[in-house]
Amino acid sequence: MTDRVRVGVIGTGSLGTRHARTVAERVPKAALVAVTDERRDVAEVAATLSPETVHVPGHPTLLSDPAIDAVVITTPNDTHVEMICAAARAGKHIFCEKPIALDLAGANAALAAVSEAGVKLQVGFQRRFDGAYRAARDKLRSGKLGEIELVVATTRDPSPPPAVYFERCGSFFADTSIHDYDVLRFLTGLEVAEVHAVAATFAVEDIGTLATLDTAVTTIRLENGALATITNSRRSNYGYDVRIEVAGSKGKVAVGEHQQSRFETLTDRGATRDFVGSYWDLFEQAYVAEIQHFVDCVANDTEPEATGHDALRALEIAVLAERSYTEGRPVAASKLR
Amino acid sequence: MTDRVRVGVIGTGSLGTRHARTVAERVPKAALVAVTDERRDVAEVAATLSPETVHVPGHPTLLSDPAIDAVVITTPNDTHVEMICAAARAGKHIFCEKPIALDLAGANAALAAVSEAGVKLQVGFQRRFDGAYRAARDKLRSGKLGEIELVVATTRDPSPPPAVYFERCGSFFADTSIHDYDVLRFLTGLEVAEVHAVAATFAVEDIGTLATLDTAVTTIRLENGALATITNSRRSNYGYDVRIEVAGSKGKVAVGEHQQSRFETLTDRGATRDFVGSYWDLFEQAYVAEIQHFVDCVANDTEPEATGHDALRALEIAVLAERSYTEGRPVAASKLR
Amino acid sequence: MTDRVRVGVIGTGSLGTRHARTVAERVPKAALVAVTDERRDVAEVAATLSPETVHVPGHPTLLSDPAIDAVVITTPNDTHVEMICAAARAGKHIFCEKPIALDLAGANAALAAVSEAGVKLQVGFQRRFDGAYRAARDKLRSGKLGEIELVVATTRDPSPPPAVYFERCGSFFADTSIHDYDVLRFLTGLEVAEVHAVAATFAVEDIGTLATLDTAVTTIRLENGALATITNSRRSNYGYDVRIEVAGSKGKVAVGEHQQSRFETLTDRGATRDFVGSYWDLFEQAYVAEIQHFVDCVANDTEPEATGHDALRALEIAVLAERSYTEGRPVAASKLR
Amino acid sequence: MTDRVRVGVIGTGSLGTRHARTVAERVPKAALVAVTDERRDVAEVAATLSPETVHVPGHPTLLSDPAIDAVVITTPNDTHVEMICAAARAGKHIFCEKPIALDLAGANAALAAVSEAGVKLQVGFQRRFDGAYRAARDKLRSGKLGEIELVVATTRDPSPPPAVYFERCGSFFADTSIHDYDVLRFLTGLEVAEVHAVAATFAVEDIGTLATLDTAVTTIRLENGALATITNSRRSNYGYDVRIEVAGSKGKVAVGEHQQSRFETLTDRGATRDFVGSYWDLFEQAYVAEIQHFVDCVANDTEPEATGHDALRALEIAVLAERSYTEGRPVAASKLR
Repeated sequence: MTDRVRVGVIGTGSLGTRHARTVAERVPKAALVAVTDERRDVAEVAATLSPETVHVPGHPTLLSDPAIDAVVITTPNDTHVEMICAAARAGKHIFCEKPIALDLAGANAALAAVSEAGVKLQVGFQRRFDGAYRAARDKLRSGKLGEIELVVATTRDPSPPPAVYFERCGSFFADTSIHDYDVLRFLTGLEVAEVHAVAATFAVEDIGTLATLDTAVTTIRLENGALATITNSRRSNYGYDVRIEVAGSKGKVAVGEHQQSRFETLTDRGATRDFVGSYWDLFEQAYVAEIQHFVDCVANDTEPEATGHDALRALEIAVLAERSYTEGRPVAASKLR
Repeated sequence: MTDRVRVGVIGTGSLGTRHARTVAERVPKAALVAVTDERRDVAEVAATLSPETVHVPGHPTLLSDPAIDAVVITTPNDTHVEMICAAARAGKHIFCEKPIALDLAGANAALAAVSEAGVKLQVGFQRRFDGAYRAARDKLRSGKLGEIELVVATTRDPSPPPAVYFERCGSFFADTSIHDYDVLRFLTGLEVAEVHAVAATFAVEDIGTLATLDTAVTTIRLENGALATITNSRRSNYGYDVRIEVAGSKGKVAVGEHQQSRFETLTDRGATRDFVGSYWDLFEQAYVAEIQHFVDCVANDTEPEATGHDALRALEIAVLAERSYTEGRPVAASKLR
Repeated sequence: MTDRVRVGVIGTGSLGTRHARTVAERVPKAALVAVTDERRDVAEVAATLSPETVHVPGHPTLLSDPAIDAVVITTPNDTHVEMICAAARAGKHIFCEKPIALDLAGANAALAAVSEAGVKLQVGFQRRFDGAYRAARDKLRSGKLGEIELVVATTRDPSPPPAVYFERCGSFFADTSIHDYDVLRFLTGLEVAEVHAVAATFAVEDIGTLATLDTAVTTIRLENGALATITNSRRSNYGYDVRIEVAGSKGKVAVGEHQQSRFETLTDRGATRDFVGSYWDLFEQAYVAEIQHFVDCVANDTEPEATGHDALRALEIAVLAERSYTEGRPVAASKLR
Repeated sequence: MTDRVRVGVIGTGSLGTRHARTVAERVPKAALVAVTDERRDVAEVAATLSPETVHVPGHPTLLSDPAIDAVVITTPNDTHVEMICAAARAGKHIFCEKPIALDLAGANAALAAVSEAGVKLQVGFQRRFDGAYRAARDKLRSGKLGEIELVVATTRDPSPPPAVYFERCGSFFADTSIHDYDVLRFLTGLEVAEVHAVAATFAVEDIGTLATLDTAVTTIRLENGALATITNSRRSNYGYDVRIEVAGSKGKVAVGEHQQSRFETLTDRGATRDFVGSYWDLFEQAYVAEIQHFVDCVANDTEPEATGHDALRALEIAVLAERSYTEGRPVAASKLR
């Protein structure tokens, strides 16, 4: 089985372990050969996912192993640039969680390292691999709904992460809204022209940075004049609420709904349905598909979707939102380019 | 305003009072001129609905008033034959609630009296006046869904009526299932060929007649070979549950849903919706439309929809269901004709 | 029947005629005694709604009739101030469609005239009379959903009005978005602190005023810090799309859905549902209820809901949106007060 | 990796290949070591699923391999008894698709062979492994919905299988309705007391056996007096339509819906959704879970859910339905025992 893509996972927290399990169990063309994490005990648990997997002490050791073809980076956001650069220099193909950087300088440095090394880079925008999003994109690209005019999107987490998370995650816009920024580009095929953002902190303790914002509205003017509004929250209470509507001049597509299970209870107090409990409940198939896609691209030497360019573009929108929020006024995208 | 249709209402219980209010307030071409009820106090309340309305002591007095053009009969089911015959003999046009009789002999007597008097008779199958049912019928009649093959219908009341109701309502099939029997004919345009019914008493005290059955399944073979199953209950707990699906060889229409309000609450315990609380909540517009239709037919001398023939046909199905239930076997419709 | 409230309707276009019919047919305590319209033929048709109704040539004649207690004003938006002032001076109680004025000076003049005359004024914010909106408000006010944090609302018309309409309707914000501005205040019980608006013209010919904007996003910061985003369009294609979600710290209410009929067709091409065709399809009951409420208030000498104060507050938000759109930056509400 | 459960698959048609792929790719504790099929080319394709898999010529060869621990039987229905008996005699644990036999004598022979050999037998009632069905069962067993009173269920395939299928599949009741019969028992925890079935042939060529029935209604009285009605069709056109409602004395659970994707398109022709295309689209996770469960039971020496007893009970209902259909009358379950 030496023809399988040998993968190492750097950072085996919740999502990192899920990606590691996907590599081990759901991608026959790949082998999970090594894992590492700052927290040794966490990595050791992940190393039990397959008899082929070993735990190694730190990402330098993992990256120096010539038997490894590709890495999955799921470390804290503030380490992504360093990890991408190191992996690229080591000649490994790279799957990195979003965002690839906390600022544009970092993003550009990461992309330059990838480019110089000639390795592949795929970013964890898993919605691009969800069937409903792909069907929506195809419908919009077919022209049957006319020109894009108005977009309404939301991503709301059920509850906020622990306080320690905010020390390394970057701004709320770069950490959470970035999923919607990317989907906006993915579905419309359009770039942004102007961004205005307002935000507030309701659910978490404010540490005086953009990280602890937890409620935001981003208004975007796209290059064709279309308007978009994106709402985000770190605390919905009612589950993982992810929906988007894109209206064209002839009609609209709507993706997403609140309900998770095809199961309803009706009593004399009304009808009760569940909700989507977590990102994994909603997007498990997409998360698996993105890893399978990455491995396919490495094995077949083809370019992955959800590229570093896409990651940079989405981060630019987050940076524009940060500036707009900080300065209290709309900011043109041309300010960045 | 002498050109308005002058209407008297016989029986001003819950639904009778609603019909009286419709005549008084929602049908400009009609005047509510008289009401009567066995319970004098109930009728006196209804008489306040309009300054033009008087209370009269008993239906003979009401029927002998030459100024009355038409009557609405909403007395207990076991009086419908007597009321129809008396109204017809008095030359009044008749709107009568379902069922028109508790047995076929009574139904035939009522229809003969109507025919002899040359008056109009409309039966209270209000679903025929509901927009969704009419749209479903039109879709089915268009041929776009092919030949009718399979029907699944249900009518479930939120909670059973008081015990006294069962003394005069006739069988559960003739009292409740008859709505589905009529809609089955209305939507498919087909007559029944064979009926099989099973039933049980779960929610009310059994008085040893077919009236206190409260849960039933009627299986019907239609004249073209299509199959139908109808479930009924007097006690859903979760509101007035009325739905029907008709599948043809090319597709299906589905009418009805549980939710009443366009209103949903989402909390950490899930998503909650209301349900349809009562027949009036679901069918208010249809109830008003059927009375408006009746008045129009009287004013314009045209034949009403939801005729005595329809009432007889629906009752025949109820009688077949009664026999099937009693004898524990399917009964062919040819046994009746 | 002299105790009924005698109502005149000024302006019998589409909605004016609907209100006139409601007075004539659905409000027993009211009589439709007079109608007028700039277009004589239109008013003559409306005068046939009831045998009690006469057509009069112009609103001065109608207002000078001492037998009239109250008026419904449904003339073009740019005449509302003049009509309110004239009606108030004539001592008539007033039901006026939104907006009460095209600018704040006009609104203040209208409210002053009403106040001086001591007449009642109700504004046509019919959503306040819709059961789902009232249930949502009650749920939010109960505190069970915690503090208000995030609002997402939309109002989209199926297709734009004719070009002539834009000459007199005021800005898109004052004409259309104002419904959402009012509902925002109604549901949250909060005033606005800051407004930012972006807008575009996609569906109609641009005549260089704020009237022919047809697509807009308004971002609002409420006085408690909560954020709201409102999207509006004059051309959805897929019907009258009106929805609102209000998220509190403990959960969310959602009002509105796309589907009108409880009717679905399933074939080998998928499942098809209809949509809400028009404002009347969605809000007929609310439109009737608001007129009934107005007549009740006149008859019983009580204050109507949906007051001139509410109209002024909603218009202020529209004016803030106009300024924000024109100046390309957020505008604080304090600029107006 | 000698500790993995070594599995052979007998019959690698559509579902057999899916099960084989599940064993190879989704169950780390299992190894797909051998496949066989009457059609050599079909089996050879399946043998490429894993480098560990070999194709063997016929089930006797496969069963005589001492290195194989367990088999998955997905051959035509009319061979299930022979396959189960042979596998049991060879000491292999058995996962067999439904139905385990075409008649009760066959079922009893199969169960006797399994019992004598002391091997495990799990039957392919995959709905028992679907999260929504399990949640519904738990809700019903909790007692919060009271006593079971009324059940309405349906299974409808999108389109009929090819004519050759009907030569070996057994009756429509044993082939298709049996899924609903099993779920009825699974959700209610009740056995049946009486069965009445009507059926018709609309969509396929009638070959004069119970196999080519394609539309059926089964009415069932459960041991506690509750009533159930089950509708089945081989040709819905609008996808794989599988739903069930179970009403208790205090409320109802409803499982299933038409829509597959969280994706809707709205244009001026209405709202369009997709439907569930196939059994795999709806139940992929359940199909994987049942195989994982089977392997776990073999590896850990525990008893599987969905037992031979369950398969026998479901087949008994099918046999009662066959008799009822043939004789044109209800048949009591006591006739079989």
